[in-house]
Amino acid sequence: MSIAAKIAGFIESSSWIRKMFEEGARLKSIHGKDNVYDFSLGNPCIDPPREFKRYLKSIVENEVPGVHAYMPNTGYPHVRKAVAEFITREQGVDPGEDGVIMTCGAAGGLNIILKAILDPGDEIITPAPYFVEYGFYADNHGGTLVPVKTKEDFNLDIDAIDRAIGEKTKAVLINSPNNPTGQVYLEKSLTMLGDLLREKSRKTGNTIYLLSDEPYRKITYDGIGVPSVLKCYNNSFIATSYSKDLSVPGERIGYVAVCPEAEDRNMLIQALALANRILGFVNAPALMQRVIGGLQGVHVDVSEYARKRDLLCNGLSDFGYHFVRPAGAFYLFPQSPTADEVVFVQALQEERILAVPGSGFGTPGYFRLSYCVEDRTISDALPGFERVFKKFT
Amino acid sequence: MSIAAKIAGFIESSSWIRKMFEEGARLKSIHGKDNVYDFSLGNPCIDPPREFKRYLKSIVENEVPGVHAYMPNTGYPHVRKAVAEFITREQGVDPGEDGVIMTCGAAGGLNIILKAILDPGDEIITPAPYFVEYGFYADNHGGTLVPVKTKEDFNLDIDAIDRAIGEKTKAVLINSPNNPTGQVYLEKSLTMLGDLLREKSRKTGNTIYLLSDEPYRKITYDGIGVPSVLKCYNNSFIATSYSKDLSVPGERIGYVAVCPEAEDRNMLIQALALANRILGFVNAPALMQRVIGGLQGVHVDVSEYARKRDLLCNGLSDFGYHFVRPAGAFYLFPQSPTADEVVFVQALQEERILAVPGSGFGTPGYFRLSYCVEDRTISDALPGFERVFKKFT
Repeated sequence: MSIAAKIAGFIESSSWIRKMFEEGARLKSIHGKDNVYDFSLGNPCIDPPREFKRYLKSIVENEVPGVHAYMPNTGYPHVRKAVAEFITREQGVDPGEDGVIMTCGAAGGLNIILKAILDPGDEIITPAPYFVEYGFYADNHGGTLVPVKTKEDFNLDIDAIDRAIGEKTKAVLINSPNNPTGQVYLEKSLTMLGDLLREKSRKTGNTIYLLSDEPYRKITYDGIGVPSVLKCYNNSFIATSYSKDLSVPGERIGYVAVCPEAEDRNMLIQALALANRILGFVNAPALMQRVIGGLQGVHVDVSEYARKRDLLCNGLSDFGYHFVRPAGAFYLFPQSPTADEVVFVQALQEERILAVPGSGFGTPGYFRLSYCVEDRTISDALPGFERVFKKFT
Repeated sequence: MSIAAKIAGFIESSSWIRKMFEEGARLKSIHGKDNVYDFSLGNPCIDPPREFKRYLKSIVENEVPGVHAYMPNTGYPHVRKAVAEFITREQGVDPGEDGVIMTCGAAGGLNIILKAILDPGDEIITPAPYFVEYGFYADNHGGTLVPVKTKEDFNLDIDAIDRAIGEKTKAVLINSPNNPTGQVYLEKSLTMLGDLLREKSRKTGNTIYLLSDEPYRKITYDGIGVPSVLKCYNNSFIATSYSKDLSVPGERIGYVAVCPEAEDRNMLIQALALANRILGFVNAPALMQRVIGGLQGVHVDVSEYARKRDLLCNGLSDFGYHFVRPAGAFYLFPQSPTADEVVFVQALQEERILAVPGSGFGTPGYFRLSYCVEDRTISDALPGFERVFKKFT
């Protein structure tokens, strides 16, 4: 084998996921794309807001010299200022222009944070279910992901996190609104988490960071707000993107915000800038930086996703499926009616329904449905969901 | 210290470079930006070609639904096809649509290649002078950069590479046209290098890859062409970007091309796709992929850079500076008139001239001038270059 042993292992171990995707592709080629109900992808189905298109056009039409040139690795100062001002209005904490680093999406943001803070063998605690990429991101920088359980309703289990913290713990990584559960962690939980990390950092003498991955912050339902980690703990970061709230995931635009009260804050910011450069991102894409700089506070119409959530939740609930009703994001994470959820997901495929097994999120016995799909995909798939449920109960 | 020890070390060790940049910024704040002659940056001064602006506008105006959505991690199939067809016309080797992976610039491309091939402790040989980021890129993925000397005219020294190859050698990384020397490696040298790597791979049983970093391929002078590594060696990759030839470095758009004859080619391509995903790039920026897909073969007017090269070379030559006349790129790498080139570069700063010491490229005793600047920056700086030269001779 000439490729790296580690990456060969990753390819091998993810082969069952690939097989499921291949099966999905096979079904689409047989039955036609519209006759396969694909709930497997987190690709926003809503078009970007009109303001996005209008502003992008105006920037391109009034192009000034140097608009596509290099800028500081951390991004355009005026864009970072606009983002910092918006965070201040939204969360009541001002990260400062210098505390905002523009990144290639949240994935880029998480990678530069981990590059900046991880020493070899360090551990990152994350509540499960969790986004499968976290394991890769930790490994990229010599770290290890340590999943801990959440409560039955997928809210944070602070005691479980407490027990998991050890000498090697460098960070706790949370994702709220959560992929795959749609849960929004409570302010009370975040405050307790902040207190715990403060105490543990003091006791061990090692700073433990809190990383909050928040690409779904703007997508919540029933008036639920997402509490600010910057308020709950000083050594905290936000990593986020505009992928979901502006429906532009292909453009790779997001940012990292550093808590204004973080220890060694200037050093941290220097480390993030260097990490952005040397990991090969160099800077977030120039044109999209300018675009989002003028669109702070603009987002897609969340009522569209709320309608889809209700359509899916009400349907599945009627058939007897058990799940926690999502407070945000566009995912539902129901219990599998049978213990081996891979068998269940395969049975869904026989009904031309594509879902992702919970094992892919560190939580077997569940499955994930992305409801960022056309309404009729949901309504047309419901009879199939019912038939498969009956098969196993 | 709460940040990673390694990155803290990087920040510390690069502090002298930072100090030089800070001195440059200080000079600009005192004398005004236009009265400081800044030859320290590789930021193209020529505007993107008219075709770029026109095509970008037409894409934004005729926006189709889903244009900013996720696509495969490797990029849009139609863009990859356009790139593969252009490489076929340009180099006479067809990497195939599947052999082209769209990336966040050449820096992103090099990082996904290294992630895909490096096992811990592997070595990457590179001819010096070399782009300083290579050391970081190798280190990101557990590898070590092994610089080897070049000939006096900065052409490849195949014997030096031969001697440097050992059990740990995983790749040779070349950059032609070269940053910082402007040298273009000869076809004869690349053929010899291919033969050497083929023989060494066979003898050791370890595949040794050839990585060619080519962002300056389109910027050559006096009718000089850049030979194709894909023709000279089967286990080869090209990593490149449109940053320099379309003057859009802020947009982070480039690609990796895999030789059609590479061993385990399908596995390599899978590894590159996975690396693009898990390093946090996910995919190259969507809009810019579409733009370059329609602009294959378009590039800035190279005669502009040729004129600047001549202006600078003729001036410095008259004063007595020694250098190899660049065949490509927009850098000049003259010998320092005094052994310690940092002292010399500091003396240039007293004349409000900013340059980068050769130590930053693994080659002390030289300094780099980027001539991607206004013509008058060159002509106005010449008297200062003369005065400093006289000071040391």
